[in-house]
Amino acid sequence: MDDKIYFTYQHIHKLVHKLVQDIISSGFTFDCIVAIGTGGFIPARIFKTYLNKPIFTVGIQYYDENNNPSESPRKIQWIDEVERKLKGKRILLVDEIDDSRTTLVFCLNELLHHEPKQVAIAVIHNKKKIKNADFPHEVVYFCGEYIEDKWVEYPWSALDIDEHDRCAAINEYT
Amino acid sequence: MDDKIYFTYQHIHKLVHKLVQDIISSGFTFDCIVAIGTGGFIPARIFKTYLNKPIFTVGIQYYDENNNPSESPRKIQWIDEVERKLKGKRILLVDEIDDSRTTLVFCLNELLHHEPKQVAIAVIHNKKKIKNADFPHEVVYFCGEYIEDKWVEYPWSALDIDEHDRCAAINEYT
Repeated sequence: MDDKIYFTYQHIHKLVHKLVQDIISSGFTFDCIVAIGTGGFIPARIFKTYLNKPIFTVGIQYYDENNNPSESPRKIQWIDEVERKLKGKRILLVDEIDDSRTTLVFCLNELLHHEPKQVAIAVIHNKKKIKNADFPHEVVYFCGEYIEDKWVEYPWSALDIDEHDRCAAINEYT
Repeated sequence: MDDKIYFTYQHIHKLVHKLVQDIISSGFTFDCIVAIGTGGFIPARIFKTYLNKPIFTVGIQYYDENNNPSESPRKIQWIDEVERKLKGKRILLVDEIDDSRTTLVFCLNELLHHEPKQVAIAVIHNKKKIKNADFPHEVVYFCGEYIEDKWVEYPWSALDIDEHDRCAAINEYT
């Protein structure tokens, strides 16, 4: 067994459901979802099933094709006419993982320029590690589960989904 | 058993893999993926695993919250600076289903205004039914599988993913 953590689609789907319940319990309400692409696309789409709000996406590239972090995150796509769409709104910013926190803080700062009313962050996983950056204290934070600082294999990145699910089946997290 | 078709995440993942093989066999190459949101988000993210190209997303709303089609599709989000990003490019336009074809043709026509070099469409499913609109003949079309004209339940729309998977397990398509 390699030293990676494998998650099934079903596990991710249930974690989003749990996150939704946490968000509802917290009293935080929001007008729209901003999904950080490409990792946030699948979690955000599942969120929409439980909390039917429009999804905007932003495309951010931080890791290069060899999975090494680049100097700083780079925008692949941003939201058109952001001020009109985000100003005064309550936003749920969704990504799959809070790893070094660099991408999340980059996106968050970009969003905050557009004067939303409030922003909450929802991630499926938070790696237990020292982060490169901090969130402003006014930002609400939701996390599906905390995990060890190991390489994570998400189901959508599987070349062979059957083999992926077999690896996940012998993984304590599933 | 209700008269719906249920698909598991694993089935969708494998259909995307098959589509990728079809696309490679066809000789069609592309520079970027345009995902039609929100149905195309999950298929597009899986495409990226096999064919690592940037994903742009467009948000289109055609069905209202009661799942009734509105008068015409409406843009929720479009691509910033589209001309620079899409002009002269080969685009793979991705959505989950070719149902009435209205949304696909709407998006296609919008994209064609920006003078891409070529556009191919890739959908997971094509419903065997009379369509409301036709594609221009120069557009290449890829489809994972043809299905009956029944209501489709995708896994990402499941309120209870275990119950969804049980329904899919007794479904001929899985």
